Amino acid sequence: MTVVSGMTEEMKPESVALHHLGAAAALDPELLCIFGTGDLGRSLGQRLLQSGYKVVYGSRRPHSCGPVPQGAQVMSHAAAARSASLIFICVHREHYDFIEMMAPHLEGKVLVDLSNNLKKDMYPEANAVYLQRLVPGAEVVKGLNTLSAWALQNGLLAGKQVFLCGNSAKAKHAVAEMATKLGLTVLDRGSLSAARELEDFPLQLFPQWRLPLCVALGLTAFFYFYLLIRDVLYAYFEDGKDISFRIMVSLANKVFPIVSLIMLSLCYLPGVIAAFIQLYRGTKYSRFPDWLDRWMLCRKQIGLIALGFALLHAIYTFIIPIRYAVRHKLISRVVDENNKTTPFNFDNTEAWATDSFYVLGILGFFLYVLLGLTSLPSVGGSLSWREFNFVQSKLGHLTLTICTAHGYIYGWNKFLRPSTYKWYTPPGYMLCLVVPSIVLVLKMLLLLPCHSRANELLVCSAREPSGTSIARATTLEAWLQREI
Amino acid sequence: MTVVSGMTEEMKPESVALHHLGAAAALDPELLCIFGTGDLGRSLGQRLLQSGYKVVYGSRRPHSCGPVPQGAQVMSHAAAARSASLIFICVHREHYDFIEMMAPHLEGKVLVDLSNNLKKDMYPEANAVYLQRLVPGAEVVKGLNTLSAWALQNGLLAGKQVFLCGNSAKAKHAVAEMATKLGLTVLDRGSLSAARELEDFPLQLFPQWRLPLCVALGLTAFFYFYLLIRDVLYAYFEDGKDISFRIMVSLANKVFPIVSLIMLSLCYLPGVIAAFIQLYRGTKYSRFPDWLDRWMLCRKQIGLIALGFALLHAIYTFIIPIRYAVRHKLISRVVDENNKTTPFNFDNTEAWATDSFYVLGILGFFLYVLLGLTSLPSVGGSLSWREFNFVQSKLGHLTLTICTAHGYIYGWNKFLRPSTYKWYTPPGYMLCLVVPSIVLVLKMLLLLPCHSRANELLVCSAREPSGTSIARATTLEAWLQREI
Amino acid sequence: MTVVSGMTEEMKPESVALHHLGAAAALDPELLCIFGTGDLGRSLGQRLLQSGYKVVYGSRRPHSCGPVPQGAQVMSHAAAARSASLIFICVHREHYDFIEMMAPHLEGKVLVDLSNNLKKDMYPEANAVYLQRLVPGAEVVKGLNTLSAWALQNGLLAGKQVFLCGNSAKAKHAVAEMATKLGLTVLDRGSLSAARELEDFPLQLFPQWRLPLCVALGLTAFFYFYLLIRDVLYAYFEDGKDISFRIMVSLANKVFPIVSLIMLSLCYLPGVIAAFIQLYRGTKYSRFPDWLDRWMLCRKQIGLIALGFALLHAIYTFIIPIRYAVRHKLISRVVDENNKTTPFNFDNTEAWATDSFYVLGILGFFLYVLLGLTSLPSVGGSLSWREFNFVQSKLGHLTLTICTAHGYIYGWNKFLRPSTYKWYTPPGYMLCLVVPSIVLVLKMLLLLPCHSRANELLVCSAREPSGTSIARATTLEAWLQREI
Repeated sequence: MTVVSGMTEEMKPESVALHHLGAAAALDPELLCIFGTGDLGRSLGQRLLQSGYKVVYGSRRPHSCGPVPQGAQVMSHAAAARSASLIFICVHREHYDFIEMMAPHLEGKVLVDLSNNLKKDMYPEANAVYLQRLVPGAEVVKGLNTLSAWALQNGLLAGKQVFLCGNSAKAKHAVAEMATKLGLTVLDRGSLSAARELEDFPLQLFPQWRLPLCVALGLTAFFYFYLLIRDVLYAYFEDGKDISFRIMVSLANKVFPIVSLIMLSLCYLPGVIAAFIQLYRGTKYSRFPDWLDRWMLCRKQIGLIALGFALLHAIYTFIIPIRYAVRHKLISRVVDENNKTTPFNFDNTEAWATDSFYVLGILGFFLYVLLGLTSLPSVGGSLSWREFNFVQSKLGHLTLTICTAHGYIYGWNKFLRPSTYKWYTPPGYMLCLVVPSIVLVLKMLLLLPCHSRANELLVCSAREPSGTSIARATTLEAWLQREI
Repeated sequence: MTVVSGMTEEMKPESVALHHLGAAAALDPELLCIFGTGDLGRSLGQRLLQSGYKVVYGSRRPHSCGPVPQGAQVMSHAAAARSASLIFICVHREHYDFIEMMAPHLEGKVLVDLSNNLKKDMYPEANAVYLQRLVPGAEVVKGLNTLSAWALQNGLLAGKQVFLCGNSAKAKHAVAEMATKLGLTVLDRGSLSAARELEDFPLQLFPQWRLPLCVALGLTAFFYFYLLIRDVLYAYFEDGKDISFRIMVSLANKVFPIVSLIMLSLCYLPGVIAAFIQLYRGTKYSRFPDWLDRWMLCRKQIGLIALGFALLHAIYTFIIPIRYAVRHKLISRVVDENNKTTPFNFDNTEAWATDSFYVLGILGFFLYVLLGLTSLPSVGGSLSWREFNFVQSKLGHLTLTICTAHGYIYGWNKFLRPSTYKWYTPPGYMLCLVVPSIVLVLKMLLLLPCHSRANELLVCSAREPSGTSIARATTLEAWLQREI
Repeated sequence: MTVVSGMTEEMKPESVALHHLGAAAALDPELLCIFGTGDLGRSLGQRLLQSGYKVVYGSRRPHSCGPVPQGAQVMSHAAAARSASLIFICVHREHYDFIEMMAPHLEGKVLVDLSNNLKKDMYPEANAVYLQRLVPGAEVVKGLNTLSAWALQNGLLAGKQVFLCGNSAKAKHAVAEMATKLGLTVLDRGSLSAARELEDFPLQLFPQWRLPLCVALGLTAFFYFYLLIRDVLYAYFEDGKDISFRIMVSLANKVFPIVSLIMLSLCYLPGVIAAFIQLYRGTKYSRFPDWLDRWMLCRKQIGLIALGFALLHAIYTFIIPIRYAVRHKLISRVVDENNKTTPFNFDNTEAWATDSFYVLGILGFFLYVLLGLTSLPSVGGSLSWREFNFVQSKLGHLTLTICTAHGYIYGWNKFLRPSTYKWYTPPGYMLCLVVPSIVLVLKMLLLLPCHSRANELLVCSAREPSGTSIARATTLEAWLQREI
């Protein structure tokens, strides 16, 4: 008796503990089936084996289907389907017809459709919907189609997000459990009608960047032609000088900072507009117009494009002194064409003005880079909400202020000269100062004590009766947070 | 009979397999309750629905509470509380009083307190402690309060860390399971007494950056005024020249590299001090003083600030030749004020010295940037321990050596000139070389064979009897690893 | 009776729900055992406690083993081993002998070997294999050895990948469950024979960077000496001039862009070779030679090294105008040694050519930086497959084209001058244009309609009968994706 009880003492904690470690621990590893022995099928199988599953492949020719990962079995489609309850369909949509013939074997099984198309709208219905129609008795789940064979083979899955959709909650749950074990994070996108959306994900090409890029290119083209006319054509027609070589560097180095500053102010304009809409309506709890909402959602992209233009401006500026035309101008100041020399008298005001101009530019660019760094997913993710808000709102407005001042100093003593307005047009840097000036003036109005109703509302909302007020206070929080 | 057994064959594997996939797979999705239909409540509910849960909202006015995510139900608080065992409190602390009235319905339930305050120490006790006092029969868990409505809506949760605390291990376990399914990683911070700490997390503003930033600003201010006196005031009082325009760029471009180099050496000084403390004590297993420990923990921040100053120094240097004063000086060298020209005789030594100076600066800055890149969470995380250690310790000391040499070459032929010591003060670059020189000399002493007791100890420790020795050997490993 | 049923109503949903939340939720937290109270053992224990486990330490001297995390117990090795079924061995391999004596207590337990060695091949067999030999009745799992005490203490585990191996699937499953709860992602590397490989992981020092770095250093050394002979030695022997100061900056600034451009083209050469192999073989489904496979796998590293050299080239270029020798040259052009001045006549062609040269360089560098940014793990991970492909393939080839054009413009008017070919050798920039020109010509051939069989094959493959075709189409996808 003592021996037996000793054994029980020895064994029991273990079996209990193993049970604690997960219900499946004491059972054999689960068997999953994969249809298709292509690269995707093989990579998925290898990964499943690495995560502790058993894998069986279904193949048309089980004995000549090429190499499969070590440890996996290959069977006919029917035999493989019978042996498992969860089947991955790693087959092109073109070959789904064989699945229809197998429908009786697939009754009640969970079919995971991983297929993608080569382009959008190739077929009238989504692949997964088509599959469900072929095998009405199975529970089709669309998902994991954003994973590539490459990512699966190289284990780059940790923390990656995948989407699922399907009509059966149980089937989705089973797939989600499997995906979680692979290190993926699963998001349920609802019923199978979302399958087309999921199939379009891998075909997307920077959807959020399109509008900001178009705005940036439009501004660049406009200012390029504007300055081309004012600088190069004016010099040609009025003074008869050919300064067309300036197109390459000088013009570009005027256009880039102009576009960069306008784009930066477009980052902060929607926030100011939103605040004024709230003030006008007297409440911050009504929905914003759609265009404003979409604008606010692409502020990150607008800001990064502005940073790109600022970087180009910086590099163009750094190479100024090694340019041929600049060296020529410098030397011509000393020795003119007739070999006559002229001394260069120092002007203290000019020294102060140009140095201040450069310093503001450098500090603005430095802050720009800091803002860009916090947009990196891994850096932004490590900031607390308040830190992120501080960087993007406080530092962002500071950057805008400094860059705008950089622009103002550039033209500090040229505003009143008639020669500035060639052909009665204002120079580019004056035009580009309009939007940021408006943003900064409006922002300052919001910060004035008599206009600080926004803060008032925030405080009030915390004192309103429950239910509704929470909804509202957190709306503001969400807005603030969206500051880029 | 055969039909029945066929059915069993067909059905059994499936049910077993689904069971394998997780105990809950065969059951209906679990029902969770959310109090509060604000932005946070709605975002959380939507996310829970996406992760496969059923969601019921508790609201004061179930029929007029505004939109809730599709698929969720809205009930009265009491009805909602009855239907679920886990309740999220997405309500401001100001409105907790209604919860007190509901206490009978909340007996034995798990209440997750997600609330935050607008500033620190607004209330004498933590929100979660207050909630527990209102409903003593419930099991309050504080947590998930670092998640924002924005992050929940946009699915940016994968791999994010959240904290929990609470007095009931079971309740915390239930919440942790739920959070894991959302893709979050959970850290238990102990009992409910840690709630205040958790509530302070979202309000933190760069706590680890404060000390390094203060040191950097202090050094900047000191050297700015020191150089202002030595350069600008000296020129004004002794030579009667107004060179105040130098404040903007020239002075700053002297102060930034000085502060950068000192900050960089402050990164490596604590490691050297720690090694000497160990040598002095004859053991590496005793605790270091507190100030040293804190210093070592903010080395990453010190290093990044040093990189920021180095970047500013680089940009300031790049724009030197386009400055007005520099162009004036260059031209004055050729044509003086009296329009008299002077030739410029080439000095080979000067060419070598200045080029070496620039090359060391460039290489130092390049290594600086490499060090900074490995501080990015996503880059540093992909390095093995030995790689990280190689970059931060070996490359770090190489960077310090090169940057120090950059400083020494700057003053190579000025050390002995009396004119260098204006008003009997040493120039700034001499002062800034003190700390890095000390660090490098001490580091070299540690590397000398006669002093390499550190390595000896490491080898010895591996031969000491078990238990204790492991504790100690891994202490060193941890220290080494902390080398930024 | 009503009271009882009320209680049931009140209690039942909760217990069911808690059960839903995970099978273990209703049970006490599981007990895990750690042998060794060193830094690693203590950090691991603290982390396990934070994740909701109970922890017991096994120590030789339970009453004097130093501090353990709050909440953990300390027992003798034997008592601790008896109380848990999963035991972490946080002890150096040197002290495994005591484990042998404990073998009877470890029968049937899961032993997790976390040990690492100080260098490779210190022992004839892997630590875990040795442990298994000492305790044949236990189930040894090697794993988690890439985690450091530092990472465990600071909670930097979220989404990190760890490897396991072991002979018992059940034991591995139990460890994997535990690791998943800590936020880690687990990859099974098979049986215990993989233990040595796992033990070598933390000792790796940039294995994928070695070959690219060697190629880069080899190219740098070759071109450095080549240009040293052509420039400095030629000037010394033929013209009797000492221009050795040019070694520091001028030579380096010729070598860096040369190496950068060659490395960049080496990024895209293997893709072109692979396409031609496919065309020659008439099929894209056969395996590529091993050397090509290895080459393609280190393209990311080649590209990043190319970016590093490009950055150095950019900085070297920015500081050109502040160099002593450059200022001397500029002034000598105006005022020669005999104090005679010469005017500088403007040449429009020269202005166009140099400006175009600079602009191509700037745009190439800008695209280079964009490519480098998408190599950051966190940025690349947020791109869809098509986006990543677009950036790395389309933008990559555009970058190569622009940088090659930058090189061609540099020598546009020097190709035919005999003085260019000093000592009958071609200048460095001509040599460096060979490889990129070949890559671009081959790439253009592939894009010509008559040669676009690659696309044809892709379309065909989608129409081939099932099974095989999928394997093949996805091979191409995998290749495309590997474009860096």
